[in-house]
Amino acid sequence: MQSSKESMSAGRSWTRRRDEKARRLQNAQRFTVGNRIPTNRIVEALEVLLAPGDRVVLEGNNQKQASFLSMALSQVDAGKVNKLHMIMSSISRREHLDIFEKGIAEKIDFSYAGTQSLRVAQMLEDGILKMGEIHTYLELFGRLFIDLIPNVALIAADKADDAGNLYTGPNTEETPAIVEATAFKDGIVIAQVNELTDELPRVDIPGSWIDFVVVADKPYQLEALFTRDPRHITELQILMAMMTIRGIYERHNVQSLNHGIGYNTSAIELLLPTYGEQLGLRGKICKYWALNPHPTLIPAIESGWVESVHCFGGEVGMEQYVAARPDVFFTGRDGSLRSNRALSQVAGQYAVDLFIGSTLQMDGDGNSSTVTAGRLSGFGGAPNMGHDPRGRRHSTPAWLDMMTADDPLARGKKLVVQMVETFQAGNAPVFVESLDAIQVGRDAKLATTPVMIYGDDVTHVVTEEGIAYLYKAQSLEERRQAIAAIAGVTPIGLQHDPRLTESLRRDGLVALPEDLGIRRTEARRSLLAAKSVDDLVEWSGGLYQPPAKFRSW
Amino acid sequence: MQSSKESMSAGRSWTRRRDEKARRLQNAQRFTVGNRIPTNRIVEALEVLLAPGDRVVLEGNNQKQASFLSMALSQVDAGKVNKLHMIMSSISRREHLDIFEKGIAEKIDFSYAGTQSLRVAQMLEDGILKMGEIHTYLELFGRLFIDLIPNVALIAADKADDAGNLYTGPNTEETPAIVEATAFKDGIVIAQVNELTDELPRVDIPGSWIDFVVVADKPYQLEALFTRDPRHITELQILMAMMTIRGIYERHNVQSLNHGIGYNTSAIELLLPTYGEQLGLRGKICKYWALNPHPTLIPAIESGWVESVHCFGGEVGMEQYVAARPDVFFTGRDGSLRSNRALSQVAGQYAVDLFIGSTLQMDGDGNSSTVTAGRLSGFGGAPNMGHDPRGRRHSTPAWLDMMTADDPLARGKKLVVQMVETFQAGNAPVFVESLDAIQVGRDAKLATTPVMIYGDDVTHVVTEEGIAYLYKAQSLEERRQAIAAIAGVTPIGLQHDPRLTESLRRDGLVALPEDLGIRRTEARRSLLAAKSVDDLVEWSGGLYQPPAKFRSW
Repeated sequence: MQSSKESMSAGRSWTRRRDEKARRLQNAQRFTVGNRIPTNRIVEALEVLLAPGDRVVLEGNNQKQASFLSMALSQVDAGKVNKLHMIMSSISRREHLDIFEKGIAEKIDFSYAGTQSLRVAQMLEDGILKMGEIHTYLELFGRLFIDLIPNVALIAADKADDAGNLYTGPNTEETPAIVEATAFKDGIVIAQVNELTDELPRVDIPGSWIDFVVVADKPYQLEALFTRDPRHITELQILMAMMTIRGIYERHNVQSLNHGIGYNTSAIELLLPTYGEQLGLRGKICKYWALNPHPTLIPAIESGWVESVHCFGGEVGMEQYVAARPDVFFTGRDGSLRSNRALSQVAGQYAVDLFIGSTLQMDGDGNSSTVTAGRLSGFGGAPNMGHDPRGRRHSTPAWLDMMTADDPLARGKKLVVQMVETFQAGNAPVFVESLDAIQVGRDAKLATTPVMIYGDDVTHVVTEEGIAYLYKAQSLEERRQAIAAIAGVTPIGLQHDPRLTESLRRDGLVALPEDLGIRRTEARRSLLAAKSVDDLVEWSGGLYQPPAKFRSW
Repeated sequence: MQSSKESMSAGRSWTRRRDEKARRLQNAQRFTVGNRIPTNRIVEALEVLLAPGDRVVLEGNNQKQASFLSMALSQVDAGKVNKLHMIMSSISRREHLDIFEKGIAEKIDFSYAGTQSLRVAQMLEDGILKMGEIHTYLELFGRLFIDLIPNVALIAADKADDAGNLYTGPNTEETPAIVEATAFKDGIVIAQVNELTDELPRVDIPGSWIDFVVVADKPYQLEALFTRDPRHITELQILMAMMTIRGIYERHNVQSLNHGIGYNTSAIELLLPTYGEQLGLRGKICKYWALNPHPTLIPAIESGWVESVHCFGGEVGMEQYVAARPDVFFTGRDGSLRSNRALSQVAGQYAVDLFIGSTLQMDGDGNSSTVTAGRLSGFGGAPNMGHDPRGRRHSTPAWLDMMTADDPLARGKKLVVQMVETFQAGNAPVFVESLDAIQVGRDAKLATTPVMIYGDDVTHVVTEEGIAYLYKAQSLEERRQAIAAIAGVTPIGLQHDPRLTESLRRDGLVALPEDLGIRRTEARRSLLAAKSVDDLVEWSGGLYQPPAKFRSW
């Protein structure tokens, strides 16, 4: 033993990362003043703080963007800094991809591409971008501690004090997870801030985790992604929302939930104080939420439906409203929201009864994807919440209600609901024979098809035709029949023998609106608790301050 | 709309939690000095800072215990503080249950009961304890942000400064998750510390998240739970470890993994530098770990096998060794380990190829539990890592290797390995017709049976007889046959027709040692890279300092 021990560790350094960090910090001293990088020296500083081949986390999720740092990164000399392996929750800005064209970066691991999805696919095809993997947020955060440990993190915060303590305000989001992975493995953490201040309203990230602070030339980019204008909610969406409240939330006693982004779920939020109230459901369902501060939840909050909301991130315009409702939202001593994407995803995966989302395509087995022809959009957080978490061991009434066997080892299921109209805008059918994602995956040479939600995880599908209770299906064939029964005149729906629908209804596999006591004519916009952004502002007593683009007055 | 709005929120307060907190802090002023509670006033302070029916998180996981605070809690006047709803990762100390007998607490939500499992079951039966739910760690942390939001958190740290900033040293563990859930929902956070200091080595928890600091009368309890003395590793365990390295880790190209606690996995750790080296596997497998600082991993680290280890918690005696190996472990600027149970569980669930654990009972379908007659031990973190995380979307070679279909929508699987001898100590068979957990669950009136790992999540079972490659089974019947083939002379094994074994071997569903090129006679203790704790100390160059009970010299 001794001999192998001596031969192996003789002369090996165990502080290579720490030594390398010290070397870089030393080189950066000519550009820095203590822990401060002057705004106009950031590009030069990055050129010595980064090295070719580094793994770099660039904070850019679907809301807060380290936009000053990403611009600076795109300006470094590719002769000095190149072949970077970028790790980004979201590819959202032009320069996020420019750095690949310039040869600064080479490889990417990410979660979501959004508006840049077309360009990502094109750059992959052209060999400009080397693909790592596409993840959900939690997977990506997890890998930061395992096999994607960062050399450098470029992050964004609102304010810093002299000691480098950071205040993130409502948009804490994923900053703590990124910083922790970097700071505690001798990586370099560089924070852009909107301003320096003597005293922070609260500390979100301790200064001893931060290496450098740089004041950005303008505040970080922040998008209002979770704002849905009620004016755009259609009566078809209202019908589906009524069916969901009656046929799923009430029926299964759903206490805790996550809503995806979209008009479908906004409609549900806006029907709780009206239709939900008529049904006598206040205080009985939908009490605990893992959710961004959706403006369309304001009427339900004001009407006493909501016990608590934990947030992945903030939402532009909701700052003062949230600060005035600390019994509902998680807030700090400064009064403003504390969000945390990693912890809210954990809660959204394991601690809620139900996830409900929408999709662009669903096949006959119930598999769905938002990846459509030519667009490699990634996953975000939805699959993390939109699956049955088989590591879950605690029960709730809704979870137990999904048990269909009386085997002593039977367990419940998370409710995973897909809510879609049978046709998208532009008359493209949602229900299709085969997902576009299969071809996109092949073109991008992905190891598996980028499926957002797998059919065997889906418990319910809601369309304007009715609800398919997939958890009750005893076979794949039965699951297919239930989906086809509510797929309207799409290719999947047209294959369905309408005579089967009767027996599916009898067996509880399918419910039509009339089975739920809902008349289609009742689904009117007058049922919405707020019909415009203006109404939302009024509900909030003027506390909600929508961004200009949502103002009509 | 306006009328409903006015009627609903008229007169409602949205700051009830904040007001109630302010009221309690006010009442506590007679016992406190700023943010400091004098050691000898803690019981009185708790009597005004807690109120009947509060949800209280008491930090007590399987390593660090807020032992001063739990003792103090057990001394409060049950006339003043009662009907508490306790939330505890682990029920580990006598007074954790005494508070129920005294009427101070009434209900419990927990993850793991360990040494108190017998008493928990008894108290449930006697109606002294009201059961909430049994969770995995991540579920419990998740619920702290959803429907188990704490009123008070009682936590433990090493040091505090004047501003209440906390230093946890290597045992950060779950403190950040508990504090975040409490501090940002106007709960009260009380931290016991071993000492006060002017300047902290680093900040683990910002002071603005903490309400009170109290210096404990003695350092918090800390157990060395992950230390396994190599002297107790048997040659049967070595045989199983060889099979696992050859037939699973090498075969499937396992890069990243989590090991459970136990001699079986310790044996693997100690064979990497010997048997693994002979096979030429160094640098090829087992590079990235989610793991506590197991002393038995020292030889593999020293031999250059290990790229990185992220830790759930610390391990007594490993402090200096870890601090001297920052390239491998996550450490802070002070040089010591930074652990984080919530983030390491996320990483262990989503970002590793393989989980391997052991169990006390397994049924013929592969379902297993450590809950045995009369003992309600709970789950800890194992099920969270020991299942196929269906929210995972990124691929690795090992994960892809579990794909058995060539359906375009097929996906990989996490490797979930159960490693058990066919009989436990005391000659109790591990493979049984029916799990004791079923009866325990019924007796405790649990909604579902407390199964640790479900059979349909298990990809491999290893016994001293061979390996069952369950992921290859095309049916439940085939899975049963493969398990029975390696179940020896247990009730399950005896039902097996040995003639079937040949076809199972041919189809790759079962491998015997000889199929893996392993001779049983090679499985000798001489293969262990360290044969005693003393050897581990030597491998560490004296940096590992085992607790007295593990010292034989």
